[in-house]
Amino acid sequence: MKKRIKLTIEYKGTSYNGWQRQKNANSIQGLIEDALRQLVGQDIAIHGAGRTDAGVHAYAMVAHFDTDSPIPPEKYAYTLNKLLPSDIRIKQSEEVSSTFHSRYSAKFKTYLYKIWCERTPRAIYHDTHYIINHDLDVNLMREGAKYLIGEHDFKTFMTSGSSAISTVRAITGVDIDCVQKDNGKEITINIRGNGFLYNMVRVIAAQLVKVGLKKIEPTRIKELIELKNRKYARETAPSQGLYLSHIEY
Amino acid sequence: MKKRIKLTIEYKGTSYNGWQRQKNANSIQGLIEDALRQLVGQDIAIHGAGRTDAGVHAYAMVAHFDTDSPIPPEKYAYTLNKLLPSDIRIKQSEEVSSTFHSRYSAKFKTYLYKIWCERTPRAIYHDTHYIINHDLDVNLMREGAKYLIGEHDFKTFMTSGSSAISTVRAITGVDIDCVQKDNGKEITINIRGNGFLYNMVRVIAAQLVKVGLKKIEPTRIKELIELKNRKYARETAPSQGLYLSHIEY
Repeated sequence: MKKRIKLTIEYKGTSYNGWQRQKNANSIQGLIEDALRQLVGQDIAIHGAGRTDAGVHAYAMVAHFDTDSPIPPEKYAYTLNKLLPSDIRIKQSEEVSSTFHSRYSAKFKTYLYKIWCERTPRAIYHDTHYIINHDLDVNLMREGAKYLIGEHDFKTFMTSGSSAISTVRAITGVDIDCVQKDNGKEITINIRGNGFLYNMVRVIAAQLVKVGLKKIEPTRIKELIELKNRKYARETAPSQGLYLSHIEY
Repeated sequence: MKKRIKLTIEYKGTSYNGWQRQKNANSIQGLIEDALRQLVGQDIAIHGAGRTDAGVHAYAMVAHFDTDSPIPPEKYAYTLNKLLPSDIRIKQSEEVSSTFHSRYSAKFKTYLYKIWCERTPRAIYHDTHYIINHDLDVNLMREGAKYLIGEHDFKTFMTSGSSAISTVRAITGVDIDCVQKDNGKEITINIRGNGFLYNMVRVIAAQLVKVGLKKIEPTRIKELIELKNRKYARETAPSQGLYLSHIEY
């Protein structure tokens, strides 16, 4: 009798070529599958809730797999962690119903985008933040972000090459926080929605940064949505600032 | 006429085999010297305030070099940063007197040691913190740290192999802070002294962690100092939690 096991995974994406298993490339999925093979003694494919690109991090990626191994479901976390490098940690493993699917059962996802603002150059945050050596006006960014809320066609904010049929998504909230620390300013963009197009959060982050730098007006975000064309929003904010933070089922 | 230039350098040590230039190994000093050679067109040796081991970070390492290049002293930071990877940043460059020496003129150094406490495994902090999946009693740690203050023979806390003749150093302060965040607890040990023996901060951090775990009493720190023998304090806390944070001249 096969059991379906759900894994909740945190990873620092810096050293990896993204989530998805690829030939001859170091991927998070690949390393977890390798560790599972070592543990269970057979090939097991894991199914992730989505892909993350090279350099992107996750606080709580979700993946599932089916197995008839007698290993107690809650033990996978502990035993896989012994086989995995320290920048990939299984936070939890649990048995779920056979109807659960990490990708298709997901109702909402939340991403976090981290920006570090400081005039003086910084090295410590090079792989965890988008470092900007200008100040950003957070209130203008919040004003611009309001236009994202609701169900819209987000075609402007999608990198082509994805398999999405519809480009309509619902964004339920965008929270922008700002904390002064360590001689600089950390700005975090929290964005929750029922789904995200390829690179959508990074393209949105790049436009919100332009709003914060006063290069474009907050109302430009509304216009960009209406234009439905990526050529008006060509920038993609760097991968190291992006974190998949939460998936709701 | 030679000028002496002082550099203040931040680096994330994760990808490097330490500060000091070595044959066939990636070092921070080596990369800065390579960048200087590209910029100035001649070999220039830089002198650091001290060495940091593989994986150790710095918020403000100081180094100096002599040059007769006509480049304005304050421009080195900007131009070297264009040639260096993003995990090494020159924060400031300035001309100093020819009597200034990054190592011999240093009066006090401050190191920071970062610990992350949480029951749930964490990946995001794998290269920035010593991750401990037990709670630490910060008040006991503070009590133990008090015994470090003052001038003592710190032989117990030194890894052999260093060239130190005297093992007497003065510690002027140890501040231990604790912040709840992100479902865990970040404990930072700030330690300031007139000098540090090889691995001294990491050996001290390991013993303070044992105090926080209630494996040893706070008064054991006093006994360990008096024992003057590393065999009673064998542990070295991991390199990724250590930051050279400030040098006073």
